Amino acid sequence: MKVALAQINLLVGDIAGNAAKIIHTAIHARDQLAAEIVVFPELTVTGYPPEDLLLRADFINQTEKAVEKIVSEVSGIDVVLGCPERVQDKLFNSAVVLRDGKIIARYRKNKLPNYGVFDEHRYFDSGQEICIFTKSGSRLGLTICEDIWQTDVVGQYHDAGVDILLTLNASPFHSGKILERENIVRERVKASGIPLVYVNQIGGQDELVFDGASFVMDRRGEVVFRAEEFAEQTSIVEFVENQPIKGNCAPLYSEVSSDYQALVLGVRDYVNKNGFQGAVLGLSGGIDSALVLALAVDALGKDKVTAVLMPYRYTQQMSIDDAEAEAKALGVSYHIISIEPAVQAFEDMLANIFADTPKDATEENIQARCRGIVLMALSNKQGKILLTTGNKSEMSVGYATLYGDMAGGFAPIKDVPKLLVYKLANYRNSISPVIPERVIIRPPSAELAPDQIDEDSLPPYTILDPILEMYVEQDKSVEEIIAAGFPRKDVIRAISLVDRNEYKRRQSPPGIRITPRAFGRDRRYPITSGFKGCKID
Amino acid sequence: MKVALAQINLLVGDIAGNAAKIIHTAIHARDQLAAEIVVFPELTVTGYPPEDLLLRADFINQTEKAVEKIVSEVSGIDVVLGCPERVQDKLFNSAVVLRDGKIIARYRKNKLPNYGVFDEHRYFDSGQEICIFTKSGSRLGLTICEDIWQTDVVGQYHDAGVDILLTLNASPFHSGKILERENIVRERVKASGIPLVYVNQIGGQDELVFDGASFVMDRRGEVVFRAEEFAEQTSIVEFVENQPIKGNCAPLYSEVSSDYQALVLGVRDYVNKNGFQGAVLGLSGGIDSALVLALAVDALGKDKVTAVLMPYRYTQQMSIDDAEAEAKALGVSYHIISIEPAVQAFEDMLANIFADTPKDATEENIQARCRGIVLMALSNKQGKILLTTGNKSEMSVGYATLYGDMAGGFAPIKDVPKLLVYKLANYRNSISPVIPERVIIRPPSAELAPDQIDEDSLPPYTILDPILEMYVEQDKSVEEIIAAGFPRKDVIRAISLVDRNEYKRRQSPPGIRITPRAFGRDRRYPITSGFKGCKID
Repeated sequence: MKVALAQINLLVGDIAGNAAKIIHTAIHARDQLAAEIVVFPELTVTGYPPEDLLLRADFINQTEKAVEKIVSEVSGIDVVLGCPERVQDKLFNSAVVLRDGKIIARYRKNKLPNYGVFDEHRYFDSGQEICIFTKSGSRLGLTICEDIWQTDVVGQYHDAGVDILLTLNASPFHSGKILERENIVRERVKASGIPLVYVNQIGGQDELVFDGASFVMDRRGEVVFRAEEFAEQTSIVEFVENQPIKGNCAPLYSEVSSDYQALVLGVRDYVNKNGFQGAVLGLSGGIDSALVLALAVDALGKDKVTAVLMPYRYTQQMSIDDAEAEAKALGVSYHIISIEPAVQAFEDMLANIFADTPKDATEENIQARCRGIVLMALSNKQGKILLTTGNKSEMSVGYATLYGDMAGGFAPIKDVPKLLVYKLANYRNSISPVIPERVIIRPPSAELAPDQIDEDSLPPYTILDPILEMYVEQDKSVEEIIAAGFPRKDVIRAISLVDRNEYKRRQSPPGIRITPRAFGRDRRYPITSGFKGCKID
Repeated sequence: MKVALAQINLLVGDIAGNAAKIIHTAIHARDQLAAEIVVFPELTVTGYPPEDLLLRADFINQTEKAVEKIVSEVSGIDVVLGCPERVQDKLFNSAVVLRDGKIIARYRKNKLPNYGVFDEHRYFDSGQEICIFTKSGSRLGLTICEDIWQTDVVGQYHDAGVDILLTLNASPFHSGKILERENIVRERVKASGIPLVYVNQIGGQDELVFDGASFVMDRRGEVVFRAEEFAEQTSIVEFVENQPIKGNCAPLYSEVSSDYQALVLGVRDYVNKNGFQGAVLGLSGGIDSALVLALAVDALGKDKVTAVLMPYRYTQQMSIDDAEAEAKALGVSYHIISIEPAVQAFEDMLANIFADTPKDATEENIQARCRGIVLMALSNKQGKILLTTGNKSEMSVGYATLYGDMAGGFAPIKDVPKLLVYKLANYRNSISPVIPERVIIRPPSAELAPDQIDEDSLPPYTILDPILEMYVEQDKSVEEIIAAGFPRKDVIRAISLVDRNEYKRRQSPPGIRITPRAFGRDRRYPITSGFKGCKID
């Protein structure tokens, strides 16, 4: 029996488009790959996650029509796809099996994740039963994503004597997730002795990126087939006497390589799925914008990317030189626009009101915001999305200007801590040199005041980043972080900055999640809050 | 038996502060009001909603210490308060009864709301049992908020023969909610025949505002006591033979009056709880900014509010005159700063790049963004929050400039449709005249181009607003809206604008929810989406 794994890239909400892709893929699997069954990802028809579109009756109506259309247009192959299923006033996250004009089996997801980025209890009711169908004498069981992260659904299939499990997934990426996922599945497979087909979607969807890396595991827990990460791929695995035959196993890449690919795919899909003509970004000569430029070019091609250098009196010549070198290395066209006239205009306009006040962050913010206006003007005029270049360390402590360097439609490295920015820059340079060495080694600076460097205001990133990971991603307390060996004053400083900058993050553009906990719907903190992580009574 | 209803304003996350307020209120109720029991709102110790703070072990530790402190400091009165309750790896949304140094009863919320603005399945496990305790011979049952919106928990208390129900609530306001709430409770009371004490918190918390309006209902469903809306108040209701004695019933205000009070409280609490020195806003001479100015002054006092007029060549003299009249009527100090020099600077800086392109929205956005920079500069320099002045109709269709008029820390009328803006303006003028009549009757204009009015780009608000309500709040389909009598072209235009402007809303500041569905966490739509509400196949 030949089973096709359809690792495809869907567009959330584009029901007609997704249905057409399902039909095309199923017919290709049947005619070109001689598949008897084709398995698609979770909620194939809607894409994942469709969020509150699921609350709309018109949306659900469209999904029902789409499934009818697929049923009527595909025969000669079993199609296993995911779709919402409305039953009176309930909605289920379901998998259906289509065979020759009929729905022959339906499975309703039992385990609904409602943590992290997931809100499935908001939309769905839990299914209570397992679902087995027969093909060529084999008994096949269906599960959907979260079902496999817990033990009992697989246990029920074991008790029912199933031969092969088919799992439909929309399992989002974060660093190290691919191994974590295979390890969990291996536990289920070993405990049950049932070989398993795991199909994941790929593609970027707002803050999430799905890595694919679909696989087949034999009853001993060995991966006998693995699809590429971050690429569309429909592949065949043959089962003989319910055992999968060893096929091609795409290698697992290094973590930094997977992270880089995740970011490239996330940028490409956000820009293209939202219909932008390309991307524009500000190049400061610093490492963050250098990395984002490389990501944008790798995602979209150099002809679709425009860089803008916007020097001011505090910009060092070295920064301009390096920014130009970056644009030239990647073959990207760039503009140089001094922000002096605009900053001067605002300073003059505000001179009377600010006459008796000392300079402070206000004046620095004006510089950053003048750059924001220039970039947004280019974005508006050219239909290109503005990419912001802030990293996760900055987002955490609010070391960024709202409506200034935070302005933009998408923030590719928003979930990339500064130390990982360096790793990714070195990784990209290992493929071909695009970021000048000096950019990587010079001390980071916002260049909003004379001779300013980040460490004037923040602990060094080698100290800051691990503190932030413990506080933001692991929910560790101040005392626990200090006990892990970090200076109390740095811990207090970092954490109080995190606490008080929620308001900035709330207005930041979306960015790609690559850690186990990103800002956004993964970490939902109140802005108005009397909780002080650094108060310890 | 005298029961105190403690309708208090809490600060989310401020566990020590909330505990001190609970202790103070309980002692006041005991000593000044001779209460035997004092009932507090849901999750009193943390404030509501604490969101992902609940995932932090250090946060839960602090709540446990706070409850211990309250237990040890208050005696001589039964204290019924809400707190998270950790039991091994589970967390419950609980109510506890403290009596003379001990916790004598615990109730775990049975029904966890996970719709609209609520995410309680993300944090809590459901309690499975009811909880009855005895005081002065009466059997008292405990419920928490959502429990009372469904039938079965009250049914269990009825079967168990309870004399009085005490309900702890954090029930957020929207237009008409107070009557809706009393009607639901009346159904439960009539079905069970059990009199009920309903205590709600008051205060603003980010996008939510809680109205209070706590009440006591007798077994026939008559409201025999009602606390004020939108005010802190600790009141006594006496029960004789388990029947409440009729007390003072604060009147229910008109909807427009409640809406206005909700907005005032929302602004006041956001500004004060976040520690701002006051507020700054741009006054255009239009009705939206006029209303926000009045709200700000009513919330904070005139001395804490600064208005800024920022004319450009498209600003009519009438607009300047009216804006000045508004500031003077309310006694607010104001600045006039022409944005001409800044706009000119940007046009010069971009002249080469834009040389061969026609003028479009880009140039309008530059004007709006120059105003944003001026306002943010004043905000930064003076520690005053910038209030944005956009209404819900604009937010829906994206008729606003990101980083321009959308710049700011809080958006008071973000959930107020334009037609309600008029009603609120007239309501405010009925108290004292603060908004010139001409501002209310002239056609709305963004004044970003010569002789521009909103209706050049949008359907009239009398058509637009009901379409938006049906699409955004009621999830109606295009065909349903057309069938309700609206022109197809207006429906298609409005809905396609709503669909394509999710990205702007995602970067907008928080604002006060006063409709049954606000933007924000009440309506969670993907930005990247192929769903077109106006595509009907």
